[in-house]
Amino acid sequence: MIKSKLKIIPLGGLSEIGKNMMVMEYENDIIIIDAGLMFPGEEMLGIDLVIPDISYLLEKRDKIRGIVITHGHEDHIGALPYLLPQLNVPVYSTKLTNGLISVKLKERKALSGANLKVIQFGSQITLGKFKVEFFPVCHSIPDAAGLIIHTPLGTIVHSGDFKLDYTPVDGKPTNLSRLAQLGAQGVLLLLSDSTYAELPGYTPSERVVGETLDRVIANAPGRVIVTTFSSLVSRIQQVIDAAAKHQRHVFIVGRSMTDIVRMTLELGYLKAPDGVLGRIEELKGMPHNKVVLITTGSQGEPTSALVRIANRDHRQVHIIHGDTVILSATAVPGNEALINRTVDNLFKQGAQVLYDKVAPVHVHGHGSQEELKLMLNLVKPRFFIPIHGEYRHLSLHAKLAQSLGIPKGNIFLLEDGDILELSPQGGRKTGKVSSGNVYVDGLSVGDIGSVVLRDRRMLSRDGVVMVIITVNRQTGKLVGRPDIISRGFIEPGEAKDKDMIDKSRDLVARTLDHSGVRPADWGFIYRKVRDILNKFYYDQTKRRPMILPVMVKV
Amino acid sequence: MIKSKLKIIPLGGLSEIGKNMMVMEYENDIIIIDAGLMFPGEEMLGIDLVIPDISYLLEKRDKIRGIVITHGHEDHIGALPYLLPQLNVPVYSTKLTNGLISVKLKERKALSGANLKVIQFGSQITLGKFKVEFFPVCHSIPDAAGLIIHTPLGTIVHSGDFKLDYTPVDGKPTNLSRLAQLGAQGVLLLLSDSTYAELPGYTPSERVVGETLDRVIANAPGRVIVTTFSSLVSRIQQVIDAAAKHQRHVFIVGRSMTDIVRMTLELGYLKAPDGVLGRIEELKGMPHNKVVLITTGSQGEPTSALVRIANRDHRQVHIIHGDTVILSATAVPGNEALINRTVDNLFKQGAQVLYDKVAPVHVHGHGSQEELKLMLNLVKPRFFIPIHGEYRHLSLHAKLAQSLGIPKGNIFLLEDGDILELSPQGGRKTGKVSSGNVYVDGLSVGDIGSVVLRDRRMLSRDGVVMVIITVNRQTGKLVGRPDIISRGFIEPGEAKDKDMIDKSRDLVARTLDHSGVRPADWGFIYRKVRDILNKFYYDQTKRRPMILPVMVKV
Repeated sequence: MIKSKLKIIPLGGLSEIGKNMMVMEYENDIIIIDAGLMFPGEEMLGIDLVIPDISYLLEKRDKIRGIVITHGHEDHIGALPYLLPQLNVPVYSTKLTNGLISVKLKERKALSGANLKVIQFGSQITLGKFKVEFFPVCHSIPDAAGLIIHTPLGTIVHSGDFKLDYTPVDGKPTNLSRLAQLGAQGVLLLLSDSTYAELPGYTPSERVVGETLDRVIANAPGRVIVTTFSSLVSRIQQVIDAAAKHQRHVFIVGRSMTDIVRMTLELGYLKAPDGVLGRIEELKGMPHNKVVLITTGSQGEPTSALVRIANRDHRQVHIIHGDTVILSATAVPGNEALINRTVDNLFKQGAQVLYDKVAPVHVHGHGSQEELKLMLNLVKPRFFIPIHGEYRHLSLHAKLAQSLGIPKGNIFLLEDGDILELSPQGGRKTGKVSSGNVYVDGLSVGDIGSVVLRDRRMLSRDGVVMVIITVNRQTGKLVGRPDIISRGFIEPGEAKDKDMIDKSRDLVARTLDHSGVRPADWGFIYRKVRDILNKFYYDQTKRRPMILPVMVKV
Repeated sequence: MIKSKLKIIPLGGLSEIGKNMMVMEYENDIIIIDAGLMFPGEEMLGIDLVIPDISYLLEKRDKIRGIVITHGHEDHIGALPYLLPQLNVPVYSTKLTNGLISVKLKERKALSGANLKVIQFGSQITLGKFKVEFFPVCHSIPDAAGLIIHTPLGTIVHSGDFKLDYTPVDGKPTNLSRLAQLGAQGVLLLLSDSTYAELPGYTPSERVVGETLDRVIANAPGRVIVTTFSSLVSRIQQVIDAAAKHQRHVFIVGRSMTDIVRMTLELGYLKAPDGVLGRIEELKGMPHNKVVLITTGSQGEPTSALVRIANRDHRQVHIIHGDTVILSATAVPGNEALINRTVDNLFKQGAQVLYDKVAPVHVHGHGSQEELKLMLNLVKPRFFIPIHGEYRHLSLHAKLAQSLGIPKGNIFLLEDGDILELSPQGGRKTGKVSSGNVYVDGLSVGDIGSVVLRDRRMLSRDGVVMVIITVNRQTGKLVGRPDIISRGFIEPGEAKDKDMIDKSRDLVARTLDHSGVRPADWGFIYRKVRDILNKFYYDQTKRRPMILPVMVKV
């Protein structure tokens, strides 16, 4: 009997960082792994965030058995508030991930009706023909999971986002023996995290950072202000531990940091000895060398606590002589300029600033090349798909796998939307489903497209010039001089610019007097006015504002 | 007799990377060191480039004895075409730097009338009370200089942009013995490059890159395509040397690369054995393993040769199986995304790509901490000013100097526009001159200011909505329904958006019918329409387009 083939379809997470989403389909069953968002690139002007295109899933809605989430970062859960109202299927995740999903759905008013299920590591859930088991991996958030997916064609291992840390803060290392056991039994396919496939060697243990934090907190002459990702709970734990050890009190500043500290304390992911955590009101009067502050703002977010502190704009905290600020984080690509400005401003305020370039205050949450090799070696998959990363990361990860003896033909470099059909004999790309970026801008999801973005790009470069042309409905004659209004093109009050605008009004008037304006010819007139002004302004300024002629018929 | 004080005034190059310019003033004499441009930050929408504010210099025009240029990079020479027409003073530089300045002035039609003088290393020029000597330093361009400036108050050493390389490609290491000699005689002030003050250790020698290039070019199965900065002549030399050694021909692709190769060959800064350099027309039919291409595009510039090759959009060169591409450069801050996209596209085309993260194909042109310490140690200055870098780099460099025993009070952390008055007894900041960013946008220099940039920012986020309100001049009554035109706000053709626009037209009509429109109240009406639509659109979309009411009186 010939078995059906397994379809693997990435809808996000390949070829662009973020909005991770992978579809697995076997006969009448579909499972979805992760549902993340992506933050907009520089060229996506005004866009708030980006989610995957799920038109393929909407067509096959009846086959979807569930969404399995590996961990609680935005690029793995952030699309859920937008997708669940369209695809109401159960969402499976570990306890903390589930808590973070609830918060996210609540913020976006999408919690009611959501079917969220908490899964224990090691237990198995049945989703149609798929049986899914969660195994613990180390990553920069607690309760991160990899997946073991049993299918009629064989076992699939999905690494999630992972690194190997033999001495993690929460004491839960990546479960290597389970992976070795699977490898010995035979694994059909490995999908593994490629984010740091460029980096040689091993990603250092979180312990390295713990030692730095301990040393700095022990020796700092004054207050220590630590900023990190609010989801990097193990880092917060390290700060609390070091503070407690050196008889300092810890104050949490910033809403998202306060929320997550409260939640992780309640769920048991964070532990603080009695009396260590203080309320911000108690800060005043406390000796400086007894204080540690933990704040948001590691990405230089303009409204975050740290940025307001750096700008001397925070209600409760100002930089004072002797302060040490630790940026215990790394830049998410695109945020470098904001972070650099924050560091500069902290130095200007007189703080001593420690950040990843000058001190070991952060380690990555993803494995480097040696860890990726170890994963491949233990799992010994027949087939391999590098996931999570830009195309260059996937390419390098594929080369690593080849160097370990996996034949080139058994490695599949997929792009979003590719359909890979896999059987134990081999796999091949058989087509492409609709995929790409769905823009969220304010309340609109998916309405914004290429025209709006092109216009915003044009407006952002040289501004806009409106030309109001009033014509008599009967005679087709111009009524008065055309009016011209501009924004973002010339600075108000420059005499020579006023003069130029005046000349351009005359130019339009002359053109229209000459050719006459028949309202029926509006298309022709529109293009003519636009072309004439385009040329005139370009000759005068070498700039190309968007030109918008408007006709008023009276 | 009390001597006058020396004034040191940075007009650029501190607190923001680029547009380097330093003013030194003693009694009736002023010298200017460097005149660079800066590429615009992400928030400077539509701006082409940024130059320093020289209003201070224009006031003191009669005192200026000359502009001394340390080397030929844009951030040191790029403002000259804009400044020389205003300040016609002699420009002193070494031979290659002078050549590059001429090219730049010619491009901008500012060459005629410019007074450019070529200076030999070691010779001295007298500029009023200042005597200036150029000494060779290693940097990522040939003929780079540091300056020894003799003043009535003592000797000043200005490092230029430098690193120490004991085995440079051009055989001209930084002249350490001259520095040691000066240090022994006593130096009043050192100004030293802080660009890489964050990096511990030593910047590796160019030789490291030479070895990688040689190995790759020797072993590559097919063509090797190398991209680098066109001014990094030593890198081009290394590629030519390796190609010649392994019997490959070198083809230059891209206009700026072709221009600089021609110029440096003529001036003797680049040497190519006979027959190694080929014309691009000869490329066809040449065995792939006999070919090396050198191209522009190391910063992912959209119109560069490499980017067009990566996009399969180049007239002469396509990626073919077996190609190896080497990006022998590092990202200038802000260009990361463009470069990453180019690397991804090259991988997608099937090339093997080597770049700084995965292979030693580039070294920096600036010294790391140990080199900065050596400079301080040799020169042994009484006073120290860290230059060239963001504020965090200056702060870290200042701390390095303190750790070597320079008293904190003798180190001056300046920001652009600060006036430092210095005597052998000490120095202090005594005021601030006008300084900052002058924007060049098309033909306009300095006309674009905060209003235009604010408007462009607003337009780029949610677009623009124009409201055309036609009123009867006599009765003040609305004529017809107000018209609404938008760009960058809603995607054309979305039915529900059309409906929203329609509703907003009614809303404006109702508002104006109710309150009446008297042309004299236009200011009031303008604000009212703007506020009502702002609220309406925000409620409907959570977006805030720029709203521009226009009144037409008939």
